[in-house]
Amino acid sequence: MNAVEIIDEGRAIRLTTGPVQARFHAMWLRDNAWDEKTRAPGNGQRLIALRDIPADTHIADAKVDGDQVTVTFAPEGREIAFDPAWLMDHAYDRAEVRVAGWIGDDVEPWTAKLQTAVPTGDFEALSRGGDALRDWLGAVTRYGFGKIENGPIKDGALFDVVDLFGFVRDTNYGKHFEVRTEVNPTNLAFTGLGLQAHTDNPYRDPVPSVQVLYCLESSAAGGENMVVDGFAAALRLREENEEYFRVLSQYCARFEYAGEEGVCLQSRRPMIELAPDGELVGVRFNNRSLAAVTDVPFDEMETYYAAYRRLGEIIDDPDMEVTFRLEPGESFIVDNTRVLHARKAYSGTGTRWFQGCYADMDGLRSTYAALAQQTGMAAE
Amino acid sequence: MNAVEIIDEGRAIRLTTGPVQARFHAMWLRDNAWDEKTRAPGNGQRLIALRDIPADTHIADAKVDGDQVTVTFAPEGREIAFDPAWLMDHAYDRAEVRVAGWIGDDVEPWTAKLQTAVPTGDFEALSRGGDALRDWLGAVTRYGFGKIENGPIKDGALFDVVDLFGFVRDTNYGKHFEVRTEVNPTNLAFTGLGLQAHTDNPYRDPVPSVQVLYCLESSAAGGENMVVDGFAAALRLREENEEYFRVLSQYCARFEYAGEEGVCLQSRRPMIELAPDGELVGVRFNNRSLAAVTDVPFDEMETYYAAYRRLGEIIDDPDMEVTFRLEPGESFIVDNTRVLHARKAYSGTGTRWFQGCYADMDGLRSTYAALAQQTGMAAE
Repeated sequence: MNAVEIIDEGRAIRLTTGPVQARFHAMWLRDNAWDEKTRAPGNGQRLIALRDIPADTHIADAKVDGDQVTVTFAPEGREIAFDPAWLMDHAYDRAEVRVAGWIGDDVEPWTAKLQTAVPTGDFEALSRGGDALRDWLGAVTRYGFGKIENGPIKDGALFDVVDLFGFVRDTNYGKHFEVRTEVNPTNLAFTGLGLQAHTDNPYRDPVPSVQVLYCLESSAAGGENMVVDGFAAALRLREENEEYFRVLSQYCARFEYAGEEGVCLQSRRPMIELAPDGELVGVRFNNRSLAAVTDVPFDEMETYYAAYRRLGEIIDDPDMEVTFRLEPGESFIVDNTRVLHARKAYSGTGTRWFQGCYADMDGLRSTYAALAQQTGMAAE
Repeated sequence: MNAVEIIDEGRAIRLTTGPVQARFHAMWLRDNAWDEKTRAPGNGQRLIALRDIPADTHIADAKVDGDQVTVTFAPEGREIAFDPAWLMDHAYDRAEVRVAGWIGDDVEPWTAKLQTAVPTGDFEALSRGGDALRDWLGAVTRYGFGKIENGPIKDGALFDVVDLFGFVRDTNYGKHFEVRTEVNPTNLAFTGLGLQAHTDNPYRDPVPSVQVLYCLESSAAGGENMVVDGFAAALRLREENEEYFRVLSQYCARFEYAGEEGVCLQSRRPMIELAPDGELVGVRFNNRSLAAVTDVPFDEMETYYAAYRRLGEIIDDPDMEVTFRLEPGESFIVDNTRVLHARKAYSGTGTRWFQGCYADMDGLRSTYAALAQQTGMAAE
């Protein structure tokens, strides 16, 4: 049962759908019309710009018309139908207070307890697409990482993983990079050293938002992979000490990598990144490539370093980590804007050969959303 | 003439270099040491994490030692030498007040007056690298766009442009896309319609930060290219109306593209993006792909739409635009996080064939910084 009334002298309507009420402005409604003169029928792109809508647009009439709400806009004199369900799904009339560090419903922070429920897909099943791929991609968007088993053991197999959801991000490291012990490494990743949990390439802007690591040989002792949820770590920091959370999100760190001829990558971004309305949208943490931090005022620098230290301690806490050992043909992907990964040290006896590459989350989320639509399940 | 004194009971030093003074904390100094146990000599990556530096680190001794400043850290008992010039270059002890929308010295906003001084490079000269490439890349980082003349007229020549500075960002549009009139276009860009100045793909996150457009055929009437500096537009908006600047930077817009089977790209980012300390770092503006804005409170929505309208008017103002017509073999690139581009309508008689692709600014900035170092000029 829908009802609609004009309010604020035609500047808005109040829509009632069962027990739910929401107000919508004239300009917002007109700009979001879906008639064929406003939106291209095939691709849904808007055919008009805001300049094509009169600045004094207001609502001359509004009525319930069967399943639809029909609104007449003046001075254009156009009558446009809206779907009340669509309107309520896109309502912005709410008295919600958002605290710095809020996360969406589709994101679930996790700790070591996830060890027994690592999101895992079977390579063949994922390659067939459909529900299996949809569910695995859904888990990756929810938890920020996922494992794949039973993949081929062949040079370049990691590209088959990327083909499941998106596109390789080519960089100065190439389309992919080899992770095995090198004699004169350009990067500490190519030694047998253990690496503290980190996000990759924070010196890049935009940072690659997906990393794939694919195991081809794994007979060396050690070398287990670990992942830590950077969002869970940031939220734990906030819970322990709001000041610490504030300084790491309010001030930019700097990152740098200049380990190769012709390369001098530099970025200026916070370790904890919030959207302007406080949504937690990214974590950057990498001891190897942190450059001199020069954007924190002198009076805040001690607090900043104490916060950075505490965040590192939380990240190093075994209660936060999920550990697994990849066998040849197994791989994992991380949302590199959220989940940190680490490697335990490994010895020179035996071999350890991984291939890695970068990709981006937007392609992954897009593939997931499209699959969810096709399979009749709303993407979260 | 350098001098150094220990202050705050060893928690910091005060360094004096000629007329300049700056304070540096013990922890900051220790973390930024460049000795071979702290930093890998070849690639400069940090070998230790903050957890390897005692939390109670303080300065036991500090002295000027020839060209260097030598600091002894307790409780480690380690003596580490610093270059005073490097320290002053990285000083953070300043009483600077940063207003929302500040920009760095290496960024120069521009208007239509730049029409007579479009940053332009010759393809052959740029291909030889060195000073010509350095200067053109420097102009692109400063102005956010640049033109290239006298390039080859051949399918795929745009990849030669990308090879000058970075790497192609592959997307669902392919490694490159064809811009010419199509019968059933998936995107309005592939029609002869004029397009309002816009940034590309704001529905992607991370957004591609470079776009290359390369002209292969150009006999149709019309179809001129225009560019507008989004930073200049945002700063003009701020000057005219601080409230307008505030709402467009404080609240996230939403963008969407679902014009192809299997694609459903969505993002939630502000039209005017600031770093947490207020630096103006990005502009997103695209009438075709703006989705329903649902993250602006009801009481702010009218102001938001008024601000969006005014920003569009500023962008449409001919005083802001630089226009040029590309001939076959000519191309231009834009920093797609800053500079908007537009196309005038063109007619069906004659042909117009462009190829476009995406790439990223981090690779471009890196190439510029490395070239500037090689050629003995500090990158700005």
